[in-house]
Amino acid sequence: MNVSHASVHPAEYPPTTDAGEGGGGGGNIEVPRVRMKDFQGMPGTQGGLALRICQFVFAAVGLCIMATTSDFPSVTAFCDDEDLQNLYGDADAINEIYLVAATGLQSLWSLSLAIIDIYALLVMRSLQNYRVVTFFTIGDGIASTLTFAAACSSAGITVLIDNDLDICSQNHCVQFETATAMAFISWFTTLPSFLFNLWSLASR
Amino acid sequence: MNVSHASVHPAEYPPTTDAGEGGGGGGNIEVPRVRMKDFQGMPGTQGGLALRICQFVFAAVGLCIMATTSDFPSVTAFCDDEDLQNLYGDADAINEIYLVAATGLQSLWSLSLAIIDIYALLVMRSLQNYRVVTFFTIGDGIASTLTFAAACSSAGITVLIDNDLDICSQNHCVQFETATAMAFISWFTTLPSFLFNLWSLASR
Repeated sequence: MNVSHASVHPAEYPPTTDAGEGGGGGGNIEVPRVRMKDFQGMPGTQGGLALRICQFVFAAVGLCIMATTSDFPSVTAFCDDEDLQNLYGDADAINEIYLVAATGLQSLWSLSLAIIDIYALLVMRSLQNYRVVTFFTIGDGIASTLTFAAACSSAGITVLIDNDLDICSQNHCVQFETATAMAFISWFTTLPSFLFNLWSLASR
Repeated sequence: MNVSHASVHPAEYPPTTDAGEGGGGGGNIEVPRVRMKDFQGMPGTQGGLALRICQFVFAAVGLCIMATTSDFPSVTAFCDDEDLQNLYGDADAINEIYLVAATGLQSLWSLSLAIIDIYALLVMRSLQNYRVVTFFTIGDGIASTLTFAAACSSAGITVLIDNDLDICSQNHCVQFETATAMAFISWFTTLPSFLFNLWSLASR
């Protein structure tokens, strides 16, 4: 793993030659000039890992709910009436594809960072390289913005569709609403990660 | 203005007793321990003022477009068909009220902070009090989140309504879409203010 070699430093003390050799191939890495403060919620901490797992679980649950809708490729069939179906069809399809794409991206991103966090915790090292934290911050910002946008537009459409119960085939509405709620919760747990990363970048 | 007395400090040099008396009633204010860096985009700078004016203008234009829709109180009449009107009615009304509320809050917030910025620029002082910047940051975060959520749900509903052109009374759709675009632009200009404030808080 390239990321771990370039950016994982011992958490307890600055790396000496002995520590670098003992840590498995990290001997020729640069010593960071200023130690960032290492508080819970940062990458490489248990709080950060818990946040990542929450993000991944909620995004993945939302994704599964959308994917296991029996007629996912033609999931536009929210209603039986032919005209209404045509009305709602394309926009719904666009929105649902967007929701699936956003939660899929969110879950992949969170899973990757959870694995990196687990690795950093296992080798007792701290992920505090400036470039890596910058990368994590930008990724968190993009992923959370996309997830929030998908959740909001889904919520708008859900309110519109659910408003008149006649056109709401009950199972699909419930699934769509649950997936929307999962996307909101996933966004809400991504926000602290983003803010912690940005804070640690600025206060380095 | 209570805010200015409590938080506006001379920008050029740390306040001495003379400077405090010369600055009009600021003699007994605390000297901040650490000077924050004063870069463009921060509150009290010309860049920050330009951002605030952009936010206010776009939010106000969106608000005016929504408010000047001829039948605003019954703006739910996107369509002529009775059934479709009933379908879209309430959800649209809820969403439009939310969009109006969010852009209204955004424009009020941005106008207030633009006035504070103008005051700080006129008296040549720097708005770098820790509590004031914290307040600005939280306010920016809430305002931008609300505006973005309103814009996203409006965009979702607009796509849904505009999908079948038969139910889109053209004027209203155009107005609704323009207001949505204005809300997006307003959010996009609020984001740098929020990030600059958070960055300056963290790097104090």
